[in-house]
Amino acid sequence: MMADPQVPVPPMKWDAWGDEAKAKPLSDNIRALLQQALGVSADEVAGPDRSEVVLQPSALGDDDLRALRDVVGDGNVSRADADRLPRAGGKSTLDLLRRKSRTPQAAPDAVVLPGNDDEVAALLQVCSRRRIAVVPFGGGTSVVGGLDPVREKFSAVVSLDLRRFDQLESLDEVSGEAVLGAGLPGPKAEELLAARGFELGHYPQSFQYATIGGFAATRSSGQDSSGYGRFDDMVCGLRVVTPSGKLELGRAPASAAGPDLRDLFLGSEGTLGVITAVRLRVHRLPEVKRFEAWRFDDFDTGAAALRAVAQLGTQPTVIRLSDEAETGVNLAMTDKIGGEQVTGGCLAVTVFEGTEQQVAARHELTSAVLREAGGTSLGPEPAQAWEHGRFDAPYLRDSLLAAGALCETLETATSWSNAATLKAAVTSALQSALAETGTRSLVLCHISHIYPTGCSLYFTVVAAQRGDAVAQWQQVKRAVSDAIMANGGTITHHHAVGVDHRPWMTDEVGELGVRVLRAVKNELDPHGILNPGKLIP
Amino acid sequence: MMADPQVPVPPMKWDAWGDEAKAKPLSDNIRALLQQALGVSADEVAGPDRSEVVLQPSALGDDDLRALRDVVGDGNVSRADADRLPRAGGKSTLDLLRRKSRTPQAAPDAVVLPGNDDEVAALLQVCSRRRIAVVPFGGGTSVVGGLDPVREKFSAVVSLDLRRFDQLESLDEVSGEAVLGAGLPGPKAEELLAARGFELGHYPQSFQYATIGGFAATRSSGQDSSGYGRFDDMVCGLRVVTPSGKLELGRAPASAAGPDLRDLFLGSEGTLGVITAVRLRVHRLPEVKRFEAWRFDDFDTGAAALRAVAQLGTQPTVIRLSDEAETGVNLAMTDKIGGEQVTGGCLAVTVFEGTEQQVAARHELTSAVLREAGGTSLGPEPAQAWEHGRFDAPYLRDSLLAAGALCETLETATSWSNAATLKAAVTSALQSALAETGTRSLVLCHISHIYPTGCSLYFTVVAAQRGDAVAQWQQVKRAVSDAIMANGGTITHHHAVGVDHRPWMTDEVGELGVRVLRAVKNELDPHGILNPGKLIP
Repeated sequence: MMADPQVPVPPMKWDAWGDEAKAKPLSDNIRALLQQALGVSADEVAGPDRSEVVLQPSALGDDDLRALRDVVGDGNVSRADADRLPRAGGKSTLDLLRRKSRTPQAAPDAVVLPGNDDEVAALLQVCSRRRIAVVPFGGGTSVVGGLDPVREKFSAVVSLDLRRFDQLESLDEVSGEAVLGAGLPGPKAEELLAARGFELGHYPQSFQYATIGGFAATRSSGQDSSGYGRFDDMVCGLRVVTPSGKLELGRAPASAAGPDLRDLFLGSEGTLGVITAVRLRVHRLPEVKRFEAWRFDDFDTGAAALRAVAQLGTQPTVIRLSDEAETGVNLAMTDKIGGEQVTGGCLAVTVFEGTEQQVAARHELTSAVLREAGGTSLGPEPAQAWEHGRFDAPYLRDSLLAAGALCETLETATSWSNAATLKAAVTSALQSALAETGTRSLVLCHISHIYPTGCSLYFTVVAAQRGDAVAQWQQVKRAVSDAIMANGGTITHHHAVGVDHRPWMTDEVGELGVRVLRAVKNELDPHGILNPGKLIP
Repeated sequence: MMADPQVPVPPMKWDAWGDEAKAKPLSDNIRALLQQALGVSADEVAGPDRSEVVLQPSALGDDDLRALRDVVGDGNVSRADADRLPRAGGKSTLDLLRRKSRTPQAAPDAVVLPGNDDEVAALLQVCSRRRIAVVPFGGGTSVVGGLDPVREKFSAVVSLDLRRFDQLESLDEVSGEAVLGAGLPGPKAEELLAARGFELGHYPQSFQYATIGGFAATRSSGQDSSGYGRFDDMVCGLRVVTPSGKLELGRAPASAAGPDLRDLFLGSEGTLGVITAVRLRVHRLPEVKRFEAWRFDDFDTGAAALRAVAQLGTQPTVIRLSDEAETGVNLAMTDKIGGEQVTGGCLAVTVFEGTEQQVAARHELTSAVLREAGGTSLGPEPAQAWEHGRFDAPYLRDSLLAAGALCETLETATSWSNAATLKAAVTSALQSALAETGTRSLVLCHISHIYPTGCSLYFTVVAAQRGDAVAQWQQVKRAVSDAIMANGGTITHHHAVGVDHRPWMTDEVGELGVRVLRAVKNELDPHGILNPGKLIP
């Protein structure tokens, strides 16, 4: 029986996405789809109860525990299983499958909750001296193994939970800059800003749980990226604590004073330092919001239309395009999945925010481009339905996994001229790799982030679990990652690298690029305690 | 008597900006202004003729010369004074004053012109082995000492001229991506793109001479930055040759695969590697162009108007604002300088490019914002006059320096809320420091680059030369740089660091930031041959 937690618990369920109250049982439509298309029986198999889970015992000795408590106080360190379990990993399909295991599970040896930069600095000193690995922990939403409790050569590994960095430290209303604590979850950050009339506008799928520091450390990209940019674009400054000292980066809105060192910490995934605060570009709350959905005959036509919008710069806040398969199962509207098709061909969604005049102008220019490129308006409803369900897909995955389906998402990006080739290669790699494991599969794709020179490609795959589902997905993931790299994609557009994409980092940045990352790490983290086994090969 | 050059000569005058045919003799208005306001007699003093200049003898030995020739061929290496002189520095006021010296001048010991990446790699090997410093050379337009022939601990220093990297290597018309050789000067790059219907849209003041590689290595920012972004924003990929090997960076339009290593080489000023090609975002040639100038009562009102435009995102291609002093002497229109004032208060210039529909929408939204913020339209003419003369200011400086005036520009950037404070501090620092040297001064300022969170501030200062003008300006530069850092500015918004701003880099990025830069340099350039004495303290 697992005793009660001793420190505050992360808000997400320990063995599934998010909030228990929002669980999405499979509809009859989805059950039918699973049975007909994939041969999944869809009988739910209950996983172990939290009290049945066994963790590997904590490897953190009493001396080490005392040293950590000396820094942050007794109440901010815990070796209790009930505190270690919810920080044992992130929320990838592999993570969720592993949480269902009845054999002893890996977990951090302790949880530490520092309260300010000096405590983080002192903790990193203690851990460097005592050879304890440190995994920075924000919302716990990593889907790439970024939170795996990798111990490597170290005596123990601790989860450094940043939840106490939860303040809107300052807001410059004239410049539109807010300093936000790294541990603030998306909704809390937006609530603090909204009280002052401002918005960040960063809404990734993980929005409800992921934190400001996590967004920065993983180069997150939100669903409103067309309007407000990727998270990187919003970062004006960073405060970072490393074993070698502290950094304050970002003196000006733009500078030519050498390489932009902010870009070393954006995407550093806790391997180079602990981001404790982020200075962010914020904007006034939009006055008006307008929705419009569109239909295109096929994906290539729709993609060309999105390309025209990106290259002309007509400024939709949201623009996304589902392919024929995703449109066919209504994946863009979680309440209608598997029901009667909302439209044939491909569904695209647009949203516009701003002042009344801006929204009118942006909507008009964008609509003209989409119509010219072969689009037919479907009115606002399908776009509103998309927005209504936009954070729900991970709940559906929980139910699918419990029903014996294998379900995961993966993503990449490439130039417009290579998008069709890459999409076909990834789809084919997923289908053949899954066929080799003995299951049919459903591969769905959408474009959700556009740039003048290219776009993201986001894939959802559903198949039947066969044998050891962890091993099954690892085999498929290897094949599809190889296909991404062989066909000119990036190994990740916004999920980050973690453990799962690390084998492809050398292909991504080259051997010399990896050497540069190692050199930076050696300078900042000479003992290598920061998130070992992640990102840098 | 200086013998003829043996390798192709950089197109700029050796002792002044640009093209001899475009020299701008001082108008009567300007002469009057100099005499009345600054006590400058304005009698031109001729500098030495090229044949009278004496260079310090080349320190490159015959063995070293043979080793360089073995790599690039006999015709692509020269120790001739006539080849060394035009690469002896950039085009800062200090450079131009030094070129007027009749005592032996410092210069690179030889000039080398490699023809491809492998030759660059081989050169860096030879120079690492033989302990020869290497200064990469593009257009020769540095205004921060980035090309100074600093030898430090090395036996010799060579200028590595990239002019043979002069091809449009490829153009992806669908994605809008062009791979351009690092040695291509701005106009040639635009000419190659225009022949295919595309444009880069990067027009810094140095446009007519500076090169694609130089733009990347210095984080250049062009006058159309509001519409097309800073040069950084346009860079999709980079090919870099270092003593430790080659790098190909930028796999996708956006990625979360770790830190963005492109940002280590953007702004690296030749200290980390030699950029040989840049993959750039390009756009279709605009169909329509529209001009409109505006008047504001004062600088603060105008700045607030520009801020509203940036924060609302109404997308002018160009937007800039002169302060009262700059407006008063008509500096924004070089042909009218010192003549009757075009407008009272502060002059702002807007330009819009794009399709007809886009330009109409952008112009309408922007004009509404400017009007609402207190602007009065002056019609298109003053904006057209600005564009007509926009590359001419450096020619004027040549004439001013020859007439005994001290003239230089400097720039910074800060948040909107700090702009007035920083502007006042810089102005006051310039005026007092120059007063200490015994001269009155004229300090003019404009905003030429706007961002949602802040803006650039660009200063032009004119005073009388007193005593050793080099020492005089160095003293003033120290005072004003200290003032910039003490008042929250960046040491440079788009001129880069070089030798001149290097003492302030520790303030800019912190001691640990400098250690990170050194660690990267040690990994890529273990012998430290690349542009020693620049950027990294």
